[in-house]
Order: sequence, then structure tokens, then C-alpha cells
Amino acid sequence: MTRRILDLLRYGQPNEPVTIQGWVRTKRDQKSFSFVEVNDGSSLAGLQVVVNDDLPNYAETMKQANTGASVEISGVLVESPAKGQRIELKAHTIKVYGEADAETYPLQKKRHSFEFLRTIGHLRPRTNTLGAVFRVRNACATAIHNFFQERGFLWVHTPLITASDAEGAGELFTVTGLDFEKLPRTDAGEIDFSEDFFGRRAYLTVSGQLEAEIMAMAFTNVYTFGPTFRAENSNTSRHLAEFWMVEPEMAFCELEGNMDLAEAFLKHVFKHVLETCPEDMEFFNLRIDDSVLATAENIINSQFERITYTDAIALLEKADKSFEYPVSWGADLQSEHERYLAEDLFKKPVIVTDYPAAIKAFYMRLNDDGKTVRAMDILAPKIGELVGGSQREERLEVLERRVQECGLPIETLWWYLDLRRYGTVPHAGFGLGFDRLVQFMTGMGNIRDVIPFPRAPREAEF
Amino acid sequence: MTRRILDLLRYGQPNEPVTIQGWVRTKRDQKSFSFVEVNDGSSLAGLQVVVNDDLPNYAETMKQANTGASVEISGVLVESPAKGQRIELKAHTIKVYGEADAETYPLQKKRHSFEFLRTIGHLRPRTNTLGAVFRVRNACATAIHNFFQERGFLWVHTPLITASDAEGAGELFTVTGLDFEKLPRTDAGEIDFSEDFFGRRAYLTVSGQLEAEIMAMAFTNVYTFGPTFRAENSNTSRHLAEFWMVEPEMAFCELEGNMDLAEAFLKHVFKHVLETCPEDMEFFNLRIDDSVLATAENIINSQFERITYTDAIALLEKADKSFEYPVSWGADLQSEHERYLAEDLFKKPVIVTDYPAAIKAFYMRLNDDGKTVRAMDILAPKIGELVGGSQREERLEVLERRVQECGLPIETLWWYLDLRRYGTVPHAGFGLGFDRLVQFMTGMGNIRDVIPFPRAPREAEF
Repeated sequence: MTRRILDLLRYGQPNEPVTIQGWVRTKRDQKSFSFVEVNDGSSLAGLQVVVNDDLPNYAETMKQANTGASVEISGVLVESPAKGQRIELKAHTIKVYGEADAETYPLQKKRHSFEFLRTIGHLRPRTNTLGAVFRVRNACATAIHNFFQERGFLWVHTPLITASDAEGAGELFTVTGLDFEKLPRTDAGEIDFSEDFFGRRAYLTVSGQLEAEIMAMAFTNVYTFGPTFRAENSNTSRHLAEFWMVEPEMAFCELEGNMDLAEAFLKHVFKHVLETCPEDMEFFNLRIDDSVLATAENIINSQFERITYTDAIALLEKADKSFEYPVSWGADLQSEHERYLAEDLFKKPVIVTDYPAAIKAFYMRLNDDGKTVRAMDILAPKIGELVGGSQREERLEVLERRVQECGLPIETLWWYLDLRRYGTVPHAGFGLGFDRLVQFMTGMGNIRDVIPFPRAPREAEF
Repeated sequence: MTRRILDLLRYGQPNEPVTIQGWVRTKRDQKSFSFVEVNDGSSLAGLQVVVNDDLPNYAETMKQANTGASVEISGVLVESPAKGQRIELKAHTIKVYGEADAETYPLQKKRHSFEFLRTIGHLRPRTNTLGAVFRVRNACATAIHNFFQERGFLWVHTPLITASDAEGAGELFTVTGLDFEKLPRTDAGEIDFSEDFFGRRAYLTVSGQLEAEIMAMAFTNVYTFGPTFRAENSNTSRHLAEFWMVEPEMAFCELEGNMDLAEAFLKHVFKHVLETCPEDMEFFNLRIDDSVLATAENIINSQFERITYTDAIALLEKADKSFEYPVSWGADLQSEHERYLAEDLFKKPVIVTDYPAAIKAFYMRLNDDGKTVRAMDILAPKIGELVGGSQREERLEVLERRVQECGLPIETLWWYLDLRRYGTVPHAGFGLGFDRLVQFMTGMGNIRDVIPFPRAPREAEF
């Protein structure tokens, strides 16, 4: 039976007969033998295979087994005399499934820019860096499911197509089945979306939170983990038009419980990734950003600082540092302020709470001071804002007032208000941008390089 | 600390002091005490609470603690004299968080139709049936992740927004950021999608398979688990416009390996759900469809039959049964044929392989006979088709010919063909409609009742 290379590198013993399958990364022909490094995607490192020239069809096979070729190799494991590897494979038989023409195959040994690699999104997963990214991404996703499932949270699938822009959280993509050449019109001359597939205008969701609240009111603890969308035309290294979000929601939970959960959650995820992908994480630390291991350790080992927005403003006003953006109570914290707090002042993650109501969403619970809400943002050194959450407003009359103050359409929120009408409870939750988490964890400079097929302005290939 | 009710029902011991939080399902006032059944979503059964009239504010509290009200109750567990429950809670203190007006709260004790419940999608998760459905749905999803992760498969996030309709698998939703009132036009007078957000016309995906193949060519074994879309205007009990799909893809794998994996996969998922949600599954068997437990056991305990399409046609032609649709080599199997094979003839799941090329997708591997392809469908008793998959065509020249024969745009498939140009390998995979799996597992009559917020023609509320 075929063995995965990760398994052999970790547990393989000299004299074991094994078969591997994978793709040739490099080949070095020596006088009477060749070194072939084979990778099957299970680990960063490949397995070194030694092919002696007494192998039947040696010359022909070695001509085919170029970089990129797919092979099946059987042989026996032997101790490796080379540095940095415990074992290698002495080949007895080699089968080449598919060649990769050295003239045209784009992934030759030389280094490629990430910009170039994005143009060959169908081949870049075969590179060291992108390979490591997608293994870490998978480990991160697995850690998230495990964390919540172990604690009795239900994974709930909130809808991606939605008729409401209740949150007012930015520009939306329209989803339509209409024929653009024959747009139906109302008598008043407007586009008649009642003729569209859903009988009304439909969008791609920007958050599953409001629907997750519905589910928390029945199952107590739930979380979403799925794609969300933003039609903002921002061509930056930190924005995607399609990205994955994690949004837990807990009934009978106030802001303290929300902070406790978020802190335990982040520690768990970073810890799991360090434990399951140590080679990949070391690779990032060595080749991409030499602070990623320290950042991960800092998150795992620090007790997060907790301060109010008001205290944070006071600290920033006292800071012996000049900021580009002025500091004043009522204004949102800028990235430079967040970094000062987490990196310079506390040197560990900081949870800032109780922001001014005016700069936060309508659903956050109003404090007794009438001007701040039970919001929380988690700021991490080298990262900035990693998590945003809040205790939700559970009082019907306060929520109704906030909806009106924010100028939101109260008629489309009837069901959201009903949750406060029938069996309302204190509840809270947070949101985490999954791709951004992977970006920070790996130190990758551009978020388009942590998702297999990024969607951004003018970018929808593959 | 608060305890979940599932935990108490399973492991709670008499004399333990506990606090629970949840929603009142029923209340029965007796002479000198009341029975209150509280549910927190962790289990089908609630915990029976006995409230004596010597509790401070007894009358007032019992007036508030109507069906639907949210409560926190502390007390001590006692052995229950009642039938069907091991323990109950003797209340010492009760706090009512939120009432639910008995005049207007829609979920009173009487039975409601599933049609009516769909109109209150924000409250229906609080019913017995939908509660059980969403617990089973979560268990099913968890089983899927566990199955693949244990076997070293990477969870890969394939894009939802796509520029290609390569599969030609049905009607697509368009995703656009264009202003419908100011549609840009080319000189030729056509809608100019180069001005749209993605610089071209974009759609919601119908499958992640082609991108999953990219990832399998780097990581060997991968799977997708995410939403997919179909803009078909079919208002049936088995179709959704937005549904979740699972699509594993394996490099160095032929049809045999694909069948082995699919069979092991289905057994694992059904087994996990029976083990983790026994009460919910018994509920479905009792109240919804008295065959669901037998169906699950049949899948878990049978060795799946494997026959070719050609043999299946021969068996159907010999069948002592008259079919509505004629049986003839070359035509697709109808539901009545599939049911005959699985239910009447083999009485267990059947994997039918090697269908005529003409009725299957372009990417399926052509057999040496030149007229059949290495497709497989898994048919299960009472269910019909549960899984569809195939070995993929890995030979460049054969695939190019098939693309042309099927009249597909070869220029948008350049990257898919490249996978056969560079290091191609035999590979295979399958697709499973997740919502349909949950529907069959629970016996629910309408697929709209197994997803929290169904999307279907003229249906996008919540």
C-alpha cells in the first residue's frame, strides 16, 4: 500500500519496503545514480529517492522524471548519509505517470514572485510556500471546528443569498436570474425585482450573525463558518471580495463570557497549528516573516489585557508618540493606535471594550451611560484587529430605538425584533475573518496568497 | 456553573446542585406546585423542573414562565418518580429573563404544519422536529470533517464566485456590482461586463470539483465542503437554490478506490449520527418516517453491490415489473429503475458504474470501449441516488476531444487542460448533496426543512 511522505519522514524505519506516489520537485543526476526529490503535498519536505543506474530503463526513466512529473516509486527505506534528513528511499521500480515538459512547465527551480504565481493559480499549490499555506489553512480550519464541537456548539449554515442589507455593512453584490437584455419594469418604470428568481432583490451576505442569533435562541451555543462577501472596490493586500468568516453566538452570555471564549479560541487555534504544522510554521518564520513564531507564542502564552475604549483613549493621549491621526474620544481607533496599544504599550493582545455607540453597529448592547456599547475588539501585536464582537441588545424597546436612530428599515428586521419579543436573553458573539487569521499566522504579505482562488476587483480566474 | 441539559439527562446524579438556562417548553400548574419543562437545545428532551409553591414570588414567576419564556433555574437534582425520565430538578430559585406572551407567541403546544413553520423560520428551530434536524445536521457535518481529516485529506475552499460555466450543469445565478439603471454597453450594443466588478461576467458556482482537482494535483487528497447554487426554477421538495456539497478528490486513485472511499464514507457518517444523536434519530423513526433507522442500519451493515450500467440494464430488462419509463441501453436510469435495483432486487446500496458517455459529463474517463465512462452513482434503498462520482479523464488528448465533442469553450478550460499537461495522474472523486443526505437520514419530506433558512424560487426570507 502507498504511504504518505509525511508519515515516512516522521515514522519510517530503515529496511521498510514502501511505495510512494507524488510529483518530482528536483532531480540531480550524478555519475552512476540520480537524486529525485518527491513531494505528495502531505508535508513541506519531500522524500529523497536514490535511483541507481542499474535500474531497468534508467536513462529513459530519468529523462521523463523531470521537475513536475508524477511518479510512483517502490523501494526500501535506508538511513540517509545526507544532512537534514533521517531516511531516504532506495528505488527498485519507478513508474512515470505524467511528464512535465521542462521547456514549458512554469514551476522550474528558480524563485517566482507571488504576483506571477497568482497568474498560475492552478499550479501554485505545488510550490513550497503555497503548499505550506494551504496545510496551515486546513489545520486552522480544523482547529476551529474542534474547538467549538468540543464545547457543544452547533455548526449552523446561515444563508449566503439574502434579501436584507440589515447591517448596512458595506457594498453588496446583487444575485440575479434576470435577463439583462429584458429587464422587467414596474408601472413606475423601476426595475421589477418581484419578477426575479427570489421574488425580490437578493444579495450576497456580508455576515451570518443575525441568523446565528436566531439559532442561538434555540440551541444556546452555535457558530457559523462559511463564505461572506464584500463588493468594496478596495484593491489592497488585506481585502477580498469573497472571504470566509467564523461567527460564534452564545445565548445566556454577556461580554465577559464573550471575551473569555474569544481568548480561549485564539489560543487553541494557534496552539493547534504550531503542534500539527511545525515544519510549515518554521518555514514561514525563516522565509516569509521572522516574527510569526514569536507572535503565535505571544498569543498562546499571554493573558490578554482588557481595557475600555475610554481608558484606551486616555492611554493614547498620554503616549510619548506622535500619531498621524488625532486621538479623541468618539473617533474610531486607527491602525497606528491599535498597534501602539498592543505592540508598544502592552506587548500582548489587548481587548478593547465599550466603544462609543456612534461608531458601532445598531445591534450592540447600550451601556447605562447611554453613549457607549458593549463592543469588543481584540488587537494583537503585529496584526492589529483580529476579532470584533459584542454583547447584543436584548431589550426590545432599546433595540427598536437604535434601529430607528441608525435609519435602518425596521420592517425587514421584524424577525430580528421578534427574538427580543419572545424569550429574549442576554447574548453575545464575535466575528473572525478566517483568511486574515491565516494571513497573520503565516506572515504572508498579501491575503490573495492564503486562499486558493482569490476573488478581488477584476480577479475571478480559475 | 451552568450545565447543559443533555449533560444532566445523561450523567446528572441525585442530590447534585445545578443551574440550567433555557426556554420553557411546557408548564403544568398543579395544586401546590408546577411542572416546567425546560429545553436548551442540547437535546430533544427537556429537563422537568418541579417548582413548589413555597418558592418566593411563586405566583408571579409562574405567570411569567409561559411557553417560550427564557429562564435560569437553580436547584438540586432528584430522582424522578415519573415514567420516562431518570431525574428531575427541584427548583430553589427561578429567574425569568424574557417572557413570551401566550396570546401572540406562535409556538404554543398544538401541532403546526411544516409549511406554517417555514413562515416563522426565526422561531421554528425551537420546535422538537427542527431542533432534532439541526442537531443531526451538525453531527453529520462533523462526521464528514472527521472522516476526511483522519485520512489526511485537506479541506480546501474553492471559490463561490466564478467566471466559468465549464460544467454546463444547469442555470446559473449572475453576481454583479453593476447599476441596473446604468448598464454599460459595448460599441456593439451588448452589456459590457468588462465594466463589472470582476472585469467579466461572474456567476455563483454549481460545483467546486474542477478547482478541487487543481488542489488534488498538489496535495493528493482533498475535499470541499461548502455552498453551491442552482438557478433552476424547480419548486420541488428535493431542490434548493442554495445547498451544501461535499466533494472529495483523490490523485493516484481510480474508480475502485473511489468506490471504496465513498462506501466507507457513507457508513462512517450514518454510524456517527446514530451514535451521537440516538434520541433524535429515534424521534424521526417514531414521528416522521418509520424506516429511517432501518435504512441507516442497512447502509452501515451491507456490503454495497457493485454492477455496471450495462448489467443494470440487463437486470431491469429481465425484471418482473412494468416501468413507466422504458428501459434501454443509452438512456439514463429513472428514479423507478434506481429504486427497483436498490430496494427490490439487491435490498441494499448499489453502486452502478460505467455509464454511457453521452449521458455523463465531459470530464469522466473514457473506457476502452469508446462509449462508456468510468462514472459511478450510489443508489440506496428508500433514497435513490445519494452520491455521484467518477474517475476523471487524465489523458490530455482524450480530454481535449471530449471538450470539443461536448461543445464546451476550450479557451476557458486552459488551466483544467494544463493539469493533464504537467504531471497528470489518474484521479477520481465524488459529490454528495449534503442537505439531501440530511433529508434522507431524517426522513423529512421537504428539503426546505433540513436547512435553517432555505433558498428556493420566491423564497429568501430571514
